[in-house]
Amino acid sequence: MSSIMAEKIYLYGKNPLHEALLSTKRGAPMPIEKLYLTRQASEDPKIMSDVQTYKLKYDIVTYSEIESFVGQNTVHQGVCALLSDKVLYTPFEEVISRLDLTKNPLLILLDELQDPHNVGAIIRSAVAFGASAILIGEHDQTQITSTVIKTASGMNFAIPIVKIGNINTTLKKLKDEGFWTYGLTGEGDTELHTVKFDSPTVLVIGSEGNGIRAKTLEACDFKLSIKTSELCESLNASNATTVAMYEWRKQNIN
Amino acid sequence: MSSIMAEKIYLYGKNPLHEALLSTKRGAPMPIEKLYLTRQASEDPKIMSDVQTYKLKYDIVTYSEIESFVGQNTVHQGVCALLSDKVLYTPFEEVISRLDLTKNPLLILLDELQDPHNVGAIIRSAVAFGASAILIGEHDQTQITSTVIKTASGMNFAIPIVKIGNINTTLKKLKDEGFWTYGLTGEGDTELHTVKFDSPTVLVIGSEGNGIRAKTLEACDFKLSIKTSELCESLNASNATTVAMYEWRKQNIN
Repeated sequence: MSSIMAEKIYLYGKNPLHEALLSTKRGAPMPIEKLYLTRQASEDPKIMSDVQTYKLKYDIVTYSEIESFVGQNTVHQGVCALLSDKVLYTPFEEVISRLDLTKNPLLILLDELQDPHNVGAIIRSAVAFGASAILIGEHDQTQITSTVIKTASGMNFAIPIVKIGNINTTLKKLKDEGFWTYGLTGEGDTELHTVKFDSPTVLVIGSEGNGIRAKTLEACDFKLSIKTSELCESLNASNATTVAMYEWRKQNIN
Repeated sequence: MSSIMAEKIYLYGKNPLHEALLSTKRGAPMPIEKLYLTRQASEDPKIMSDVQTYKLKYDIVTYSEIESFVGQNTVHQGVCALLSDKVLYTPFEEVISRLDLTKNPLLILLDELQDPHNVGAIIRSAVAFGASAILIGEHDQTQITSTVIKTASGMNFAIPIVKIGNINTTLKKLKDEGFWTYGLTGEGDTELHTVKFDSPTVLVIGSEGNGIRAKTLEACDFKLSIKTSELCESLNASNATTVAMYEWRKQNIN
């Protein structure tokens, strides 16, 4: 565990940097510990406007030095920043205490998703559709990595991400708070387009290969499916989640 | 052009193989020119059931030989097949002549999408939601590659994929046939959830970075947007497209 905590997380790309900085205007602590720019990036007006606004210092590095931090074939645009390890996650209790349950908030719970592109895209869609937090399992679940941040366009800085230990205990707590829990699954008996989302809602997503684990699905109030053609019975995990969030949002535009 | 035509396209993974073979039961020509399996894959009951059903011959190869065909870090599951180059695309006229316009079909037109994961996920969602064909631009647009086939779970074999030369000419032809054309764009003035999809429909998607080109957007009957929060004004391209297809499907479940 401590070795995971000590892992260095970098963000890369212009948009993720911009979103990370923007979060401080909403009261978040400064997420950037160290900023690295290529010479070319240090002449980019958009980046330098951020650097000045937030009074950031930076080191000039080469393109391949950035690649040594964030991997080859990443679209880093000459921008890379070491993140403070306290900014990526928010404690469960803090998030719950901030929620206004009379406004029927939406929480997204990710359990054992493997693909960072799916996790990132879900975070981006969750912000777009006004979800209140993302809960992610601690085990066998992609955490917030450089790739997730990039795929999310930095939107992880615009929504609380909560690490949770035991999924089923968390679901029970949320049900006690008044949430209805919906497990998204190919075999669901409740079709998405028939659901009325008129209470606090938790949407649960399982792994790309195997879906939600049996015990967790059992703990859900509803087993939710998206009606599809016979030729293709399942959607990509981020697409399925986004569609469900769209349906929720459509009914809950304030 | 001829060098592109001569490029070898491989599929990899169990599902793509299965879907490619399944398409022959719907009248498609046999798409597999040569099948390669690792020793371990040649002992997998699901794969071998396909091999027997379709009377396929195969070569036993090593894991790294497959990687030399389809790239490292691909989840190929020991399965790889060289595709016949005639099976990936269907001519425009053939697709149009097969459509029943009284059933208000949906076509998806992709123009300058760069990310094969987006293209693959869109193809998968298009089949799930009952679209009739995918039209893809010939220029600056990701074509059907191994990665696209894998991300699409082989669903490209379940829907006609049409290469089109000039996007705007194609849109005009489709409008003449009675289609309404909808450009999906952040700046659209028609909100998705207000649209009645009650005519033949073309949904146009532009590049991840820049969206639909100005001339093409001008040629669309409607500029369609998805209502999102102020914190995040755009969705990932495959998520946005999938949401629009879901809305269409919801109104057009036959």
